[in-house]
Amino acid sequence: MVQIAIMGYGVVGSGVAEVMLKNKKSIYHKAGQPIGISKILDVRNFPDSPLADKFTKNFDDIVNDPGIRIVVETIGGLTPAYEYVRRCLLAGKSVVTSNKELVASKGDELLAIARENNLNFLFEASVGGGIPILRPLDQCLAANEVYEIAGILNGTTNFVLTKMISDSMSFEDALKLAQQLGYAERDPQADIEGHDTCRKICILASLAFGRHVYPEQVHTEGISNITLDDVKYASAFDGAIKLIGRACKNSDGRLDCIVAPMIIPQASKLAEVNDEYNGILVRGDAIGDVVFYGRGAGKLPTASAVVADIIDEVKHLGARKYLSWDPGLKDYVSDYREAEYATLLRLRGSDLESALNKLEKALGKCTTVNAKDTPSDELALYTPVVCESLLDKAIESLNGVSLINRIRIASL
Amino acid sequence: MVQIAIMGYGVVGSGVAEVMLKNKKSIYHKAGQPIGISKILDVRNFPDSPLADKFTKNFDDIVNDPGIRIVVETIGGLTPAYEYVRRCLLAGKSVVTSNKELVASKGDELLAIARENNLNFLFEASVGGGIPILRPLDQCLAANEVYEIAGILNGTTNFVLTKMISDSMSFEDALKLAQQLGYAERDPQADIEGHDTCRKICILASLAFGRHVYPEQVHTEGISNITLDDVKYASAFDGAIKLIGRACKNSDGRLDCIVAPMIIPQASKLAEVNDEYNGILVRGDAIGDVVFYGRGAGKLPTASAVVADIIDEVKHLGARKYLSWDPGLKDYVSDYREAEYATLLRLRGSDLESALNKLEKALGKCTTVNAKDTPSDELALYTPVVCESLLDKAIESLNGVSLINRIRIASL
Repeated sequence: MVQIAIMGYGVVGSGVAEVMLKNKKSIYHKAGQPIGISKILDVRNFPDSPLADKFTKNFDDIVNDPGIRIVVETIGGLTPAYEYVRRCLLAGKSVVTSNKELVASKGDELLAIARENNLNFLFEASVGGGIPILRPLDQCLAANEVYEIAGILNGTTNFVLTKMISDSMSFEDALKLAQQLGYAERDPQADIEGHDTCRKICILASLAFGRHVYPEQVHTEGISNITLDDVKYASAFDGAIKLIGRACKNSDGRLDCIVAPMIIPQASKLAEVNDEYNGILVRGDAIGDVVFYGRGAGKLPTASAVVADIIDEVKHLGARKYLSWDPGLKDYVSDYREAEYATLLRLRGSDLESALNKLEKALGKCTTVNAKDTPSDELALYTPVVCESLLDKAIESLNGVSLINRIRIASL
Repeated sequence: MVQIAIMGYGVVGSGVAEVMLKNKKSIYHKAGQPIGISKILDVRNFPDSPLADKFTKNFDDIVNDPGIRIVVETIGGLTPAYEYVRRCLLAGKSVVTSNKELVASKGDELLAIARENNLNFLFEASVGGGIPILRPLDQCLAANEVYEIAGILNGTTNFVLTKMISDSMSFEDALKLAQQLGYAERDPQADIEGHDTCRKICILASLAFGRHVYPEQVHTEGISNITLDDVKYASAFDGAIKLIGRACKNSDGRLDCIVAPMIIPQASKLAEVNDEYNGILVRGDAIGDVVFYGRGAGKLPTASAVVADIIDEVKHLGARKYLSWDPGLKDYVSDYREAEYATLLRLRGSDLESALNKLEKALGKCTTVNAKDTPSDELALYTPVVCESLLDKAIESLNGVSLINRIRIASL
């Protein structure tokens, strides 16, 4: 019998307990021995829970209990999760977490502590919810040079964009609907502004390319300034707007890593990922394109990924260290303005024709786009693939026109 | 340094050597130690290969070499692969194979020998080519009750069907094109008649549900009788015809397992799997639907899956036994005529109206389908969801009409 503790009995933490109790028999069979929940840390009381006698409000009860071999961290955020996880690892306990903020910010340090103490720090649930992605990616990496990862990594924003595209709902209405359906939190900033996606692409990029990528190194844009007109222009181009997290290896060994709404071709596998679903594209030299698709969030999908990690750890207690990467480096991620994209530009003003001429002089041939029911006083165009800093300069040089929006176009 | 041998230097075997040499450095890093190819078994000579000095025509050179810890079997078929693999395992060597026929027919026996000898028998490459599916499925299974697996598991037939659907090509022309492009073999029977898909669904079902499913237990239909008219009727129903391998757990503990062309809704994730690609849908109680997508065949994708298994085995020599299932049982797979499907029926004859009346009396309300440019002298209809044996009886009772085709409709 292996004893575990759960820290944080919110949506995911209580889901972990639920899955453990419900699938007890098959989990026993898979793990090779029974797994018991010996303590649960939460500031709240749960007198009606079948596990009511396991609750404690004191972290010391867990960290000082030598009987606990594995600690599940489902508190979320950095404080106190980071300190608690660190101390658990130093106390000789393996840790399983669903906390993407923790892994994205402190993954390299916590992995190193785990390695030094012959433990595991596991976080399959931190990316893609119930979709198995980190272990399969590790497996892909074994025999492939993976050169790009791109994904729709946040279900809330994908639900909002899908409603805008399919039902011509406004951003505000789509977000309200997402909140009503429980797909968006009351404070949806972390989702809408791209921070959640940023944390997830940091974790994927760190694993895929072997060196930690910190969230503050990644240029991050959200979807709050995407309008129905943008959606129409994208459709006219036979594309869909998706919030994409993307990381590619450059020939100089550095990474391009960015989070932004992008127009991707309808024929792309990621364009077909709709509603609250996630999709992750992995590109390798030998396998070509592989896509993983499923629910990226939700109580039971995420909990099932946590439980799969627990079972894996029970099977390999004191043995296998499987995930690992090196600490980050200051200039490891390239300036996003060095990356090259074709871009949709929407301009308004008195002299649009001379603006177009100026842009073409600076960037090369642009293509104007006409979409039904879009404002008649504006010019929409696609630039050729150019360096973003060049595009910035070209836009700055325009007189008498204002930029309504600009959206990158990615061939994914 | 771990020494391996490769048996069979065809497309996959030579691909394994190619990936091992090309990604030598990263493979060393991943495996924790260098891996050397010490012998290659093939009846042919390869004097120009960089590995020319490793070739042997004598299996004894491999099985009797105590320095060889892992043997890769890429011969294909049962003879002599089965005997060779058996003897390698008995001689204390772990085996990695891409041979789906071998795993589908003898997997339970070879897994048992591996287990008894504290070895691994690994076969990630046997299903889905380079798509990681067996380990992720094992991971999904850890915390989920998986209740259904369905997939497009054969790239050749999917390419042919895609060309029929998208370009209105005839079956014969599409098959010819597939052969020209190297997607279909000169003798395409195993693909076209569904046997390849059958082997793969046997492996997936064995792993997912814990008991061996033998190919002869699975009712298997190919796509050679699918015509452009069938495709048109499917489109009229907003569906696509795909060759599906499917396994579901019944409430009585037995399995429904079948390979057949099926009409699936355009909205299904599997309907979006086109050309030579594969897609595998896994349905579990906690994760919901997860889909894995990528190239299901080809030299390098398949070789990369073999190499990933080799690396995994090098990391766990003498340790982890990870895949396993029980031997099969005679009545474990239900009679396919017990399964319930809605079905597209195409009838021709003198008294179609009374045929429709008779069918509706026996089965319940049917829906007639009209599709553009289909034969005017026939009746096409969708039955309600009924047991196949009931449908058989109803069709037999019809007088003066002939059945042109019948195709199951599946909600995947």
